[in-house]
Amino acid sequence: MRGVIMHTAGDVRVEERDDPKIIEPTDAIVRLTATCICGSDLWPYRGVEPADHQVMGHEYVGVVEEVGSEVRNVKVGDFVVGSFVISDGTCEICRSGYQSQCVHRQFVSQTIGTQAEKARIPFADGTLVPTPGHPDPELIPSLLAASDVLGTGWFGAVAAEAAPGKTVAVVGDGAVGLMAVLAAKQLGAERIIAMSRHPERQRLALEYGATDIVEERGEEGVAKIKELTGGLGAHSVVEAVGTQESTLQAIGATRPAGYMGIVGVNYEVAIPGIQLFFPGIHVHGGPAPVRRFLPDLIQLIWERKIDPGKVFDLTLPLDQAAEGYRAMDERRAIKVLLTV
Amino acid sequence: MRGVIMHTAGDVRVEERDDPKIIEPTDAIVRLTATCICGSDLWPYRGVEPADHQVMGHEYVGVVEEVGSEVRNVKVGDFVVGSFVISDGTCEICRSGYQSQCVHRQFVSQTIGTQAEKARIPFADGTLVPTPGHPDPELIPSLLAASDVLGTGWFGAVAAEAAPGKTVAVVGDGAVGLMAVLAAKQLGAERIIAMSRHPERQRLALEYGATDIVEERGEEGVAKIKELTGGLGAHSVVEAVGTQESTLQAIGATRPAGYMGIVGVNYEVAIPGIQLFFPGIHVHGGPAPVRRFLPDLIQLIWERKIDPGKVFDLTLPLDQAAEGYRAMDERRAIKVLLTV
Repeated sequence: MRGVIMHTAGDVRVEERDDPKIIEPTDAIVRLTATCICGSDLWPYRGVEPADHQVMGHEYVGVVEEVGSEVRNVKVGDFVVGSFVISDGTCEICRSGYQSQCVHRQFVSQTIGTQAEKARIPFADGTLVPTPGHPDPELIPSLLAASDVLGTGWFGAVAAEAAPGKTVAVVGDGAVGLMAVLAAKQLGAERIIAMSRHPERQRLALEYGATDIVEERGEEGVAKIKELTGGLGAHSVVEAVGTQESTLQAIGATRPAGYMGIVGVNYEVAIPGIQLFFPGIHVHGGPAPVRRFLPDLIQLIWERKIDPGKVFDLTLPLDQAAEGYRAMDERRAIKVLLTV
Repeated sequence: MRGVIMHTAGDVRVEERDDPKIIEPTDAIVRLTATCICGSDLWPYRGVEPADHQVMGHEYVGVVEEVGSEVRNVKVGDFVVGSFVISDGTCEICRSGYQSQCVHRQFVSQTIGTQAEKARIPFADGTLVPTPGHPDPELIPSLLAASDVLGTGWFGAVAAEAAPGKTVAVVGDGAVGLMAVLAAKQLGAERIIAMSRHPERQRLALEYGATDIVEERGEEGVAKIKELTGGLGAHSVVEAVGTQESTLQAIGATRPAGYMGIVGVNYEVAIPGIQLFFPGIHVHGGPAPVRRFLPDLIQLIWERKIDPGKVFDLTLPLDQAAEGYRAMDERRAIKVLLTV
């Protein structure tokens, strides 16, 4: 089969790879319908993380082609959406709703590599969710978004306790930040402040439910959020960038004893203890337990109540993956969908 | 009246100070029955924080001697317990249960200074809670503990989501750590692991409800907690020390997606973002909203269901405050009560 290999930073190729095979009785083989490029794929692409002939991609939807003897919840022919983290679905941590922290967790990224024609998905019962039927083609981008970027933005809003009566601020206007805006709206937030300076992304944020746009960043951004919230700060802040500056901006924008949801962080972020402590902020985040949200998200998409697929502003065939990486690296595209 | 003045680091004296007077109509003057020395009073005592002829003390119980014209909930003659943070009780943040984050908050420490015969308490209605009657003398230490150290340990356990079925680990065997053990027990925790190497404090921890003692610290301490919890870590961890080492120990001891309650932090603590992010830990803490818990804590003490007063292992008259500071500095005493 064909699949993406990142030879070195900046060098992405679509090459012939071995077809995946069932190894464990809990595996499934999925023939992918669509996959995409994630902001996190740019880390090795830009040389921030190592890149050495690795497979790429962790978002995926497709049709089950084969299942192991112990797979019960998905069957051959099902159209499925999968989480970007493999989870057994049965351990104590999975049962607590944190499948992304499963004792058997495996990140699909750079191990399975779903920028390809097919993928072997371990713990299929704990990782995949079948859709109610085969989807109309126009639903494919939204279902694919549920696999990571929607689930991650949703988790950010849930971790920040977005709810009716609340003011939610979202730091970051990438795909995840935009999905956090959508999630905050669905969760009933009263006011949603998108922090963005890009006209195109501001437009999408407003379409997804943002009530206010703040262009300022850093301390000026914090001051603006306070100005909009009676001097207190937002009840809920989603941090969807992951740099030191954006993290401090998110902390500063959170009201005393408010909630901050973190869905991005890089290795250099160090949070000054007193900046969490003295304002008594709640902090929660991490790799999103997408699997927890998938059944509800699929339902919302199926009923056409949400349209997260709009974050894909460039669609290319898998063979042109290299151009997709370039477009995202140069910020010509928010997010690139690859058809298989 | 007499009151403690810290002239410089290590130089504590009891001297004549002006009697407090009603300034605002929301003030109350309280004649103190007992006060005490807090671990945080040792920071200026040891020169870690500035010390320059300042008043000291922030824990207090006593009898209301005078009230301003707008005070409604306490009256002259009431025996009261007060929080170590002044709160108006009416602002949006107070109403959310975080009186320690009140928009009018004032730390009693080093401003009002309750190591004295009397104190002026601003926002008396929002800060003080009257007891059901004048207490028996043997209840005084426990009521005094509610003013800070019990309320703070309790908040740590609440922030860490201590509850039935949970395993709670407490990092720190000072008065606050011991109170967190007591709180975890009251909140119904199934297993309570006290991290302590001091036989005397271990004994008190066991008396307050600890089921296990771990003497190891740092990475060894983390390994021991994991060993005791099926490799996962504790559901709930209370950080009651506040150093970089103890903070990392607490993070490491928390299971994936578990809860860490922080009730102490020094200015040097920097939390690596990825250490919170990848295990998806919930973090919450700060100066405790003692006022939220006071009514319930007073009731538990009044009914003799808890005996937090045992953390005071040395009682001295106010005039001997300097000896009290020495005893705590040299760790000869866990916590010193000063009778007035």
